[in-house]
Amino acid sequence: MAEEPMTRFPVPDLEDMPADVRERIEAETERSGFTPNVFTAFAYRPGQFRAFFDYYDALVEESPLAREELEMVVVAVSGANDCLYCVVAHGALLRIYADDPHLAEQLATNHRTANISDAHRAMCDVAVKLTEDPAAVGESDIERLRDHGFSMEEIWDIGSTAALFNLSNRMAHFADMRPNEEFYELGR
Amino acid sequence: MAEEPMTRFPVPDLEDMPADVRERIEAETERSGFTPNVFTAFAYRPGQFRAFFDYYDALVEESPLAREELEMVVVAVSGANDCLYCVVAHGALLRIYADDPHLAEQLATNHRTANISDAHRAMCDVAVKLTEDPAAVGESDIERLRDHGFSMEEIWDIGSTAALFNLSNRMAHFADMRPNEEFYELGR
Amino acid sequence: MAEEPMTRFPVPDLEDMPADVRERIEAETERSGFTPNVFTAFAYRPGQFRAFFDYYDALVEESPLAREELEMVVVAVSGANDCLYCVVAHGALLRIYADDPHLAEQLATNHRTANISDAHRAMCDVAVKLTEDPAAVGESDIERLRDHGFSMEEIWDIGSTAALFNLSNRMAHFADMRPNEEFYELGR
Amino acid sequence: MAEEPMTRFPVPDLEDMPADVRERIEAETERSGFTPNVFTAFAYRPGQFRAFFDYYDALVEESPLAREELEMVVVAVSGANDCLYCVVAHGALLRIYADDPHLAEQLATNHRTANISDAHRAMCDVAVKLTEDPAAVGESDIERLRDHGFSMEEIWDIGSTAALFNLSNRMAHFADMRPNEEFYELGR
Amino acid sequence: MAEEPMTRFPVPDLEDMPADVRERIEAETERSGFTPNVFTAFAYRPGQFRAFFDYYDALVEESPLAREELEMVVVAVSGANDCLYCVVAHGALLRIYADDPHLAEQLATNHRTANISDAHRAMCDVAVKLTEDPAAVGESDIERLRDHGFSMEEIWDIGSTAALFNLSNRMAHFADMRPNEEFYELGR
Amino acid sequence: MAEEPMTRFPVPDLEDMPADVRERIEAETERSGFTPNVFTAFAYRPGQFRAFFDYYDALVEESPLAREELEMVVVAVSGANDCLYCVVAHGALLRIYADDPHLAEQLATNHRTANISDAHRAMCDVAVKLTEDPAAVGESDIERLRDHGFSMEEIWDIGSTAALFNLSNRMAHFADMRPNEEFYELGR
Repeated sequence: MAEEPMTRFPVPDLEDMPADVRERIEAETERSGFTPNVFTAFAYRPGQFRAFFDYYDALVEESPLAREELEMVVVAVSGANDCLYCVVAHGALLRIYADDPHLAEQLATNHRTANISDAHRAMCDVAVKLTEDPAAVGESDIERLRDHGFSMEEIWDIGSTAALFNLSNRMAHFADMRPNEEFYELGR
Repeated sequence: MAEEPMTRFPVPDLEDMPADVRERIEAETERSGFTPNVFTAFAYRPGQFRAFFDYYDALVEESPLAREELEMVVVAVSGANDCLYCVVAHGALLRIYADDPHLAEQLATNHRTANISDAHRAMCDVAVKLTEDPAAVGESDIERLRDHGFSMEEIWDIGSTAALFNLSNRMAHFADMRPNEEFYELGR
Repeated sequence: MAEEPMTRFPVPDLEDMPADVRERIEAETERSGFTPNVFTAFAYRPGQFRAFFDYYDALVEESPLAREELEMVVVAVSGANDCLYCVVAHGALLRIYADDPHLAEQLATNHRTANISDAHRAMCDVAVKLTEDPAAVGESDIERLRDHGFSMEEIWDIGSTAALFNLSNRMAHFADMRPNEEFYELGR
Repeated sequence: MAEEPMTRFPVPDLEDMPADVRERIEAETERSGFTPNVFTAFAYRPGQFRAFFDYYDALVEESPLAREELEMVVVAVSGANDCLYCVVAHGALLRIYADDPHLAEQLATNHRTANISDAHRAMCDVAVKLTEDPAAVGESDIERLRDHGFSMEEIWDIGSTAALFNLSNRMAHFADMRPNEEFYELGR
Repeated sequence: MAEEPMTRFPVPDLEDMPADVRERIEAETERSGFTPNVFTAFAYRPGQFRAFFDYYDALVEESPLAREELEMVVVAVSGANDCLYCVVAHGALLRIYADDPHLAEQLATNHRTANISDAHRAMCDVAVKLTEDPAAVGESDIERLRDHGFSMEEIWDIGSTAALFNLSNRMAHFADMRPNEEFYELGR
Repeated sequence: MAEEPMTRFPVPDLEDMPADVRERIEAETERSGFTPNVFTAFAYRPGQFRAFFDYYDALVEESPLAREELEMVVVAVSGANDCLYCVVAHGALLRIYADDPHLAEQLATNHRTANISDAHRAMCDVAVKLTEDPAAVGESDIERLRDHGFSMEEIWDIGSTAALFNLSNRMAHFADMRPNEEFYELGR
């Protein structure tokens, strides 16, 4: 039995949504084979829906970071924030993009014990520090990423991906968004 | 002497920005009399610039919450995150929209000792809880806001404003965005 | 390629272990089809090996709690402690004993958003509180469990299972114990 | 007037205990001149009683660490966990084994200001770090102990003693175990 | 409309105060043009009033630190403790003594992003560390201040000013002391 | 061998102290039979010496709280702050004034498991809350103390004693003040 997209706010019907929101959801549904619940939930507030997914798209489509790297940051941050929706949904994406069935569970539980390169360890360290103690992030964190070969645009995008999911994790907690059952199995 | 918009990433020149980003900045500059540094800083990544300001606009333009209420949430959250840029810049906006020269300093220091109504105290309590301990937010927090008369859309927007500034505060910390000197004086 | 049982201490060879330890490991290997790395790792100190597994057996074999309930406590506690080994290994056991492929990921990420009964929510709340803030556990926590129908022996065993995995999680962190790859797939 | 062994669970009678548990308690009583309350309390669940004391015995009897060193770890960890039973009972043991009437109070209050060698300071630092932030313990902590001359078996036992008392402190908090009055005076 | 000095304890009348307390308050009122609420509030307990202001005077009158430096420590500490009274009242003093209208808001929000010298950054780092994690302050903190050229008496006074406002911030929170409206505007 | 009063600042000689400071120390030495190290340490800055001891005297001499109650607050707060000097020195005073050899160790380790009345439990709860999370103290904490029969002056003095030892504990940490050996034995 499918889970409701969220439990704390009214779940909008597809037919009541603005055309562009509905089309975006239909495209996503066609691509995925199901409608990820975060789309339905965010459609409760269409203006915020558009901006939220545009931000994510700006990262996915324009970042010099590999998609796999973006999803590593997402899963590490979402694990640090104890966010079930994002751990399960983006865990699935990470399994697919990294072609690794175990990496998501490692990063969500404790990025420090994940089987990743030193550069990716630094990337996740900084993303999680920006999540847990943002005022403590300083010049030395930027330098550490540079020392691992990340460009300035890549470094901005590591921070920006972490920041976006500090928004996303909080909306998932606030609305009690529920992961679609399909996500649990994808990419195993 | 004006502060640089940010110290850790290259500051883009207006003439190198995409036309729509430049136009948005020019409009903001005309309205404010100066260019808020967050605009220049975010223009480093134009796709993220567009999405970030669209999200903020979606709140400001479409929320049933008063602008003053949105800025109260912003300042309380930014104070909890120790974010100088957002405390100073949105503190100025709050002084103007609330027509109160002291409220911003109260909310940024400790929203619990601010001179605000019980409903606004509940609003800020939930926004700060979502900031500091997001996984602990639960049904009872939503109910508390309902009991104070907030509609479901208003409640979503309280959470969403808090979530957006958990993104924004982190980007300001990450890039070391510096508040324009003009903000310190506005609305006193 | 199989992971080493642990990275920070010498991994003992089966042939060098005391006979009873070796026999225990061989029995476990026959039952599971592989040797769980915690057995090999703990065999570095045979006296502690015996006591540690005797404690776990005393819970599994003598507790009035269902095995599924014990493993729920283990996974919730190990998630709170960010322990990869125990989340992965006992997550597999929980999928099997609860006959539920999703429950482990839910409990490890955030026991508060898991699909569990109110009684099991109370059980996990108390186990996680005993993990994160042990000095704050009080009479009211015991009463809450009684109100959900747990017997005094069951309540002791909830606390004792949580306490044992506060030992176990720390040894896994200290020795950097690595989960066997087989665990990731079991019970999906 | 003697304190009850614990306030939250039924205190078992000696005559109702399994023979081996009763004998163990009688031996301890003969040696100490009184029955330490942790023995009576743990006898509520005999299988766990046997495993718990076997683990402690495995450390006391088989560790290359001096008994005094084991008890230093116990007191520092129990102080960090605010556990009255273990601070008082093992504080007495530490006064006796270290032949020092002040060391227990120093370690329980703040191991960093105790009058101990640099090697023992490192030992207690790592034990307390494993107590308070177990996921942060890493290779550098092991190396620091090696640099102070501890063998690999000794290092394991430092971690294992800390881990065992993270179990023990939690059971004492959970059951509200009360220290025998005799412990307060021993070794002064 | 003036705020009451405090909301949780009876506010003493000037005429009921001991002569020396009244005279001290009248002198302060003459100098400031208004009676700072902390004077009226502390007069509830005259013996403590005398000692508290004597401590502050001993710093202001006898310290080799500049008054501006003392107030920098006060504002950074009071910001870390979220104390509205002290942030607002001593923020005003800092604006005046440092002849800088922005420094107080910077230090209260986040001393790490304030426009201050490296020596003053070290001074505030140590003061805030002594506030937030006093048991972690160690020899290296003293050395860092020496390396920046502070004398031993200056270092003591940095610690002592921080310590005094850990008293003062707590009394302001406890009694709910309210800043006079005049403070908000002074020194802008 | 006696411990030095403090390790991080020059220890002043009695003959170099101002006459009133020296006389105060000599009186204390005559009463106690030894010179408590906090007196010698604070004499490094005579103006602060006078104010600090005047504050303590104002509590001891003028408070409607019993001396035993004041020392209970001191020990609970100093335990929460992990301050060795104050736990040992005021632990001795508490043993004497409460005529109870065990109470100090109980309160320093965990005031929640001390053998005290419900009123004293509330007193220590509020004092420790004001120590650990001062911004969270609110009207309900004052009311709880009133409900236990404390007068408004007594409540102020509970808060004020806690606040003073948040100063004192920090100075003891900062200067590394060492407890006199005599304190460990007093009142056993």
